[in-house]
Amino acid sequence: MTTAAPKDSPAVANKQVYLFGDGAAEADGMMKELLGGKGAGLAEMSRLGIPVPPGFTITTEVCNTFYALGRQYPDGLEARVREGIAHIERAVGAGFGDATNPLLVSVRSGARVSMPGMMDTVLNLGLNDVTAEGLAERSGSGRFAYDSYRRFVQMYGDVVLGVKPDSDTEHDPFEVLLDAKKAARGVKLDTELTEADLRELVVEYKGAIRDRLGIEFPDDPWQQLWGAIGAVFNSWENPRAIAYRSMYGYPSNWGTAVNVQAMVFGNLGEDCATGVAFTRHPATGDRHLYGEFLLNAQGEDVVAGIRTPQPIGKVDRVPGGPASLEETMPVVHGELVEACDRLEAHFRDMQDIEFTVQQGRLWILQTRSGKRTGRAMVKVAVDLVDEHMIDEREAVLRQEPEKLDELLHQTFDRAAQTDVIAKGLGASPGAAVGKVVFTADEAAQWAERGEDVVLVRIETSPEDIVGMRVSRGILTARGGSTSHAAVVARGMGKCCVAGCGALEIDYQRQQFSVQIEGRGRVLVKQGDTISIDGTTGEVMLGSVALVDPVLPAEYERLMSWADGTRRLKVRANADTPGDAVLARQFGAEGIGLCRTEHMFFGEDRILAVREMILAEDEAGRRAALARILPMQRDDFTGILRAMAGLPVTIRLLDPPLHEFLPQRPDEIALVAAALDVSPSDIERRVQALHEFNPMLGHRGVRLAITFPEIYEVQARAILEAACALKAEGVDVIPEIMIPLVGIEEELAQVRTLVVATAEGVIAERGTAVEYTVGTMIELPRACMVADSIAKHADFFSFGTNDLTQTTFGLSRDDASRFLPAYVEQGLLSRDPFQELDRDGVGGLIRIGIEKGRSTRANLKVGICGEHGGDPSSIEFCHDAGFDYVSCSPYRVPIARLAAAQAKLAGTPAMMRAD
Amino acid sequence: MTTAAPKDSPAVANKQVYLFGDGAAEADGMMKELLGGKGAGLAEMSRLGIPVPPGFTITTEVCNTFYALGRQYPDGLEARVREGIAHIERAVGAGFGDATNPLLVSVRSGARVSMPGMMDTVLNLGLNDVTAEGLAERSGSGRFAYDSYRRFVQMYGDVVLGVKPDSDTEHDPFEVLLDAKKAARGVKLDTELTEADLRELVVEYKGAIRDRLGIEFPDDPWQQLWGAIGAVFNSWENPRAIAYRSMYGYPSNWGTAVNVQAMVFGNLGEDCATGVAFTRHPATGDRHLYGEFLLNAQGEDVVAGIRTPQPIGKVDRVPGGPASLEETMPVVHGELVEACDRLEAHFRDMQDIEFTVQQGRLWILQTRSGKRTGRAMVKVAVDLVDEHMIDEREAVLRQEPEKLDELLHQTFDRAAQTDVIAKGLGASPGAAVGKVVFTADEAAQWAERGEDVVLVRIETSPEDIVGMRVSRGILTARGGSTSHAAVVARGMGKCCVAGCGALEIDYQRQQFSVQIEGRGRVLVKQGDTISIDGTTGEVMLGSVALVDPVLPAEYERLMSWADGTRRLKVRANADTPGDAVLARQFGAEGIGLCRTEHMFFGEDRILAVREMILAEDEAGRRAALARILPMQRDDFTGILRAMAGLPVTIRLLDPPLHEFLPQRPDEIALVAAALDVSPSDIERRVQALHEFNPMLGHRGVRLAITFPEIYEVQARAILEAACALKAEGVDVIPEIMIPLVGIEEELAQVRTLVVATAEGVIAERGTAVEYTVGTMIELPRACMVADSIAKHADFFSFGTNDLTQTTFGLSRDDASRFLPAYVEQGLLSRDPFQELDRDGVGGLIRIGIEKGRSTRANLKVGICGEHGGDPSSIEFCHDAGFDYVSCSPYRVPIARLAAAQAKLAGTPAMMRAD
Repeated sequence: MTTAAPKDSPAVANKQVYLFGDGAAEADGMMKELLGGKGAGLAEMSRLGIPVPPGFTITTEVCNTFYALGRQYPDGLEARVREGIAHIERAVGAGFGDATNPLLVSVRSGARVSMPGMMDTVLNLGLNDVTAEGLAERSGSGRFAYDSYRRFVQMYGDVVLGVKPDSDTEHDPFEVLLDAKKAARGVKLDTELTEADLRELVVEYKGAIRDRLGIEFPDDPWQQLWGAIGAVFNSWENPRAIAYRSMYGYPSNWGTAVNVQAMVFGNLGEDCATGVAFTRHPATGDRHLYGEFLLNAQGEDVVAGIRTPQPIGKVDRVPGGPASLEETMPVVHGELVEACDRLEAHFRDMQDIEFTVQQGRLWILQTRSGKRTGRAMVKVAVDLVDEHMIDEREAVLRQEPEKLDELLHQTFDRAAQTDVIAKGLGASPGAAVGKVVFTADEAAQWAERGEDVVLVRIETSPEDIVGMRVSRGILTARGGSTSHAAVVARGMGKCCVAGCGALEIDYQRQQFSVQIEGRGRVLVKQGDTISIDGTTGEVMLGSVALVDPVLPAEYERLMSWADGTRRLKVRANADTPGDAVLARQFGAEGIGLCRTEHMFFGEDRILAVREMILAEDEAGRRAALARILPMQRDDFTGILRAMAGLPVTIRLLDPPLHEFLPQRPDEIALVAAALDVSPSDIERRVQALHEFNPMLGHRGVRLAITFPEIYEVQARAILEAACALKAEGVDVIPEIMIPLVGIEEELAQVRTLVVATAEGVIAERGTAVEYTVGTMIELPRACMVADSIAKHADFFSFGTNDLTQTTFGLSRDDASRFLPAYVEQGLLSRDPFQELDRDGVGGLIRIGIEKGRSTRANLKVGICGEHGGDPSSIEFCHDAGFDYVSCSPYRVPIARLAAAQAKLAGTPAMMRAD
Repeated sequence: MTTAAPKDSPAVANKQVYLFGDGAAEADGMMKELLGGKGAGLAEMSRLGIPVPPGFTITTEVCNTFYALGRQYPDGLEARVREGIAHIERAVGAGFGDATNPLLVSVRSGARVSMPGMMDTVLNLGLNDVTAEGLAERSGSGRFAYDSYRRFVQMYGDVVLGVKPDSDTEHDPFEVLLDAKKAARGVKLDTELTEADLRELVVEYKGAIRDRLGIEFPDDPWQQLWGAIGAVFNSWENPRAIAYRSMYGYPSNWGTAVNVQAMVFGNLGEDCATGVAFTRHPATGDRHLYGEFLLNAQGEDVVAGIRTPQPIGKVDRVPGGPASLEETMPVVHGELVEACDRLEAHFRDMQDIEFTVQQGRLWILQTRSGKRTGRAMVKVAVDLVDEHMIDEREAVLRQEPEKLDELLHQTFDRAAQTDVIAKGLGASPGAAVGKVVFTADEAAQWAERGEDVVLVRIETSPEDIVGMRVSRGILTARGGSTSHAAVVARGMGKCCVAGCGALEIDYQRQQFSVQIEGRGRVLVKQGDTISIDGTTGEVMLGSVALVDPVLPAEYERLMSWADGTRRLKVRANADTPGDAVLARQFGAEGIGLCRTEHMFFGEDRILAVREMILAEDEAGRRAALARILPMQRDDFTGILRAMAGLPVTIRLLDPPLHEFLPQRPDEIALVAAALDVSPSDIERRVQALHEFNPMLGHRGVRLAITFPEIYEVQARAILEAACALKAEGVDVIPEIMIPLVGIEEELAQVRTLVVATAEGVIAERGTAVEYTVGTMIELPRACMVADSIAKHADFFSFGTNDLTQTTFGLSRDDASRFLPAYVEQGLLSRDPFQELDRDGVGGLIRIGIEKGRSTRANLKVGICGEHGGDPSSIEFCHDAGFDYVSCSPYRVPIARLAAAQAKLAGTPAMMRAD
């Protein structure tokens, strides 16, 4: 015991016990150090006039003295505890150990911070053979009384007396007895045991304690109480608590307080009730007291769902439905409304309140900020501003940005019955219902004839883009949150469940199956309807009802506050004019990533692209590129026009060329015929371009070093589009981005090529267009030599998908095999492809920015990886000095909000730094 | 002109021209700033009494004044130049412009540092229609005289008069005339033109100058001279020179000097000669003047190889061969010996000297440190120490470590005729002759029956290990210097040529072919003999004679000096007891990397390994591992015994499991039969384990997170081996290394497993063994969070192969497709897999070490990538504070030397830092 002090240390001179309840308290919410968090909270509620069950708190100083005295109670404590119990008896109108109207109490530990690893709660303390009879009488239920009693004995035996599992079987002896009883009675559920069974169990439990510990279970409530108080104090120095403190660096001299509080019961008669109330509607955010209750019931009964609950307010009573609390117990209802108003005003947020009515008296058991839908989240925050409870800054900070997703995508009807057969990764939010198809081509054909389809693949590849676009949703068996399917789906705002490993897909037979325990193998065939939830990752059989998203009226006001707050600009990743328009509607302030390769897969051009790749020499490549040029120019014209007045970052070709070549024999034959070469020629070329690690292969700027004509033509297409629009009077701001740069000279050389091409076009057209040339920073080396690279870059855009892959040495396409184990085992708190890894990847990014700006102080810095839409990652970007983030169009509102929160969170942090 | 000064600036008051030659000089070698590097060198040689052709140097101050005066010569210069020419005339005994005995001079620029981009040399200045006749007379060759004349006119026209290529054709007009003349005469070579042709060309050249520039070619030698001097001065401010200075930050006020020096001729009669001499034998290092010469000849004649050269010394005369210089010109020989002695003593190194004898007078044209073989390099350095010319430190610094390779591997006979059909990357040094086979199995079978084989593969994989071991050499069509073939071959000290892209390998037909320009397709079939050179990368048809390596007697002394100097320890990478013994012989001070996966491929165990991988659950894996355990224990016993008293770092399993599974249908069938499962089961498993980017996949510590039993069994095998040896009295120092760690918790968890297993074995055996547990740092993230990782690591070993791959985002297996273009285009100076990239990878390593030691000050740090054997990378490791480097056994001597050089190079650098 590191805190043991000599026994003659001064005893506690201060007040040892603080009373609360009955509309008053001897302490308040600020006294956490002395009373612990729970004790201070109960005192505060009492002071607010909230009718919490009365009780008292023994201070943390007493705990310290207890240890200083060699685990003995200081003088005077016993008298103060007796006063405390008397206070509770008075307030509740019951007697501790009283045979007819027994007072039962709970005993809980309570340090200044919540500390898992300390003593559990002891409930129903005060029960013995006599008071149990009294409780049976008052509640009218012997079964209830003896079930409470046997639970108390078990809890006290475990927590206070320290009964251990049997060393040979590791079974809890109480559980063994319970199981034996159920077996003897031939029943399966605890609830099937009768009052008689429970009475027997109490006796057997006490016998077990006697056998194991050689002591009698204490029948005297006072002895029970002192046992529990001592157990709380002793638990402060149990190994789990010591380990927990040491992990967080908490000193042992904080000590723990002990809270003793009256038990109240909502099932002692028809003047009793128990219920839950929300101060505003948790689904809509509407301002009225909403909730439900049951007469003569316990909390469990409400949860069990056996009886139909009654509404709190008259307005919520349905025709023919049960009466409301307002009608049934008007006085209690009035008190509840008042308590709720007070709590909401005090905590300045919508509250979720548990209450019990015992014999006509209202007791508030618990209050906390209420969980709410995205819609309610927005409305409540804006309403609270209008009600002058919080300011706009607070309203912005209160948002959970991720929840905006609900407002932007279809969702499943919460009330619908579902048959969940598997669960994958919720990779792109939304809900989709459709017929199963297994190839992109089928998806296109079925969609053509008006069917809703869900595309099911082991994994998707760039060839599947068209099929993905026409599907309602995408379901894959492999791949994580940044797999091809996930990234593309999010970009399209389309629902996607990825990495659903339980799916065994058989392309041959056009079916998939899932092995379900206790149900066998469930088979789903082409054309069967399924429903997938891109948020939860659930895969359901059949058609589940959908709910369309509705933006609450308060949304625009809230977003305008966020926009007025944030420093970070928010752009979108968009590859088509349609996506660009959508992004603009969602508030994007530019395009941060326009991938040119997706354009290459269009049906009208993939042949020319393949011709280029199959060309044997530069002349052949140039001929094919000449056919691609006008199409690329049209692409860029569309996007630049859609984003008039805003910057558009266009990334030049990035993926390895083999991605554009067909793999399947039939496709190869098709391409061979179209290009008038033999299939074996194409196979040979596909084989020659094969890479062991395509992620680390011949792609990005490396393509431009070996085949400069590709970037030359792309740069020409961009500038021709820009010049033509400029001549029309459209304001264009093209930013040309070179991917995968890791070496200064790569960028120097390619920049020279791009600038020469651009200046050539400008000179030809006679139209001056402003453009910039920058690079994606997506390799660790690029961060380390960012000072050199910045010499040739007008901007950096961190490609954090690839940077995460290379920094961790982790292929996102392969990681699904072990990354889940990492998250499960706590090696990683979250998938680093979802939440930016601040220590590793973030450290490199900070180096990259610092070095980059050391060369070029006005270097523009953005992020265009998937992290650009993740609130935690956006907070990092704000801190690290980014100029903008870029994410898929559907995440733009989330990013706007997160950027504002990052700014607000940053301000006090900076002030604290003083 | 940034340096232009007002015209009235002070004229040069100092000495404008410095004379040299004739055994004296007005300046010395220290005066580079005033006379430029070349001028100071010529002065120094003259002062040493070396008979350099006489001449004079116009100072850099004159150049500055020239510009200050608006490109005019300062007063007094003309007189001083006339004095200079008179000095040369006197010394040579010829007259400038003299009709019968004309003095010809060269004019060269010369700044204080060598500056490409400035004026070229003008030779033979002084020729005109009159002196050319005199030269013809004296040399007895009108053709020689007029060829010199037409070259002079062309050179002067280009360099001094500034004749430009024709703007339409971009052809040099002189070359056009020369080609026309050859066409008219029906000849192909310049040498086929007659004296008459050359006389005509001189006239036509002068006509071309007249036509283009409107001026006559200057016939007056003095006018020629002033023209050349002015051209040198003007060249200081030409665009190329300005760009060059700006690139290197050289100021323009350095100026350039002008060197005017007598031309001397070895072909003016039988009292003339020209030759080359080495002060020691460049192949053996033996101390005697060695070289060859030709009577009445020019330098080109020696090179052309038409006449048989004569030896310098009598001792080198072969019976029946031509007479030596010592016999033919005893006086000149005596002078040459004296000059050579003086030069060697002055430069304190073996010199390679060019000389000319003109009419009985010896002229030294050039001296430089002589190129030498590895053998000579070692002997010369040690001899120079014994001769008190240099100290041991200098001897160590003088070594080119890479050249030690020649002393350790077989080489081809330099004199042998070879038929080179292709060139790949010299990936592992040595020379190999053998019959071509295309599979590892064939290699084993052919070797079994006593054949020497060269294994030819598109690329190799771990399955080929056994076949590689029995082959004389390995030739692959794909892969770079750190491809599987290259790494394994170097480890085995076996010759390897990798990435030989010209090879078109047809496994079906068991042949490869190479397309050779002008020769068509050369076909090589199974069983044909080829020779491959692992240093040059050459692939040759047929059998080329081999020379066995011989270590010179001086080797051990030199290495002992290196070992006494270096701070870095040198270890070897070795996977077998045999390699460990070899490594120890080469001076390894431990094993830095013992890869356990190579052991898994042994014929006796691969089945058990595959069984483990194919197992469906942990129990199945454990059963298979139980069979692997005793074999692994034997492996470790062998290596630990071989390295008794020295540390052995054993890396636990690293590669992805699919590497151990067969890929070919026949192999799959074989394994299926052996394991009693269906081939489709194995195919399914192979398919399930397929990875898109195996480099970034499920490998290293990630295997241990998902299948901890694998590392558990390996740790057990190591400790069981160590305990048994310790009990025998063998001193064992096992170091257990966890690969691919990127996250603190990975190492924490696996270290706990390893330590628990190890302590268990120690307790079982009752033998205390000291062991350490560390990690490979091979991911950028590991460097960034090295402070956390070091909490759980006794040592770091930087795996720079993978760290380079991830830092650059570059797969070494795929990079051969574009990395050569990078080196060719100068984007990278060397392959970063050969020479550690200091800016990127090195920067991360420095962060890793700094952070690691911030947590654990005594952290041992090593390197075990391929860079551990590269001298430049070893220098980095020394600077960065590594404790040791580790490399393949054959590179251990190189590393010992390089480590000593790094220490020696580091000392003055540190002193300079004050």
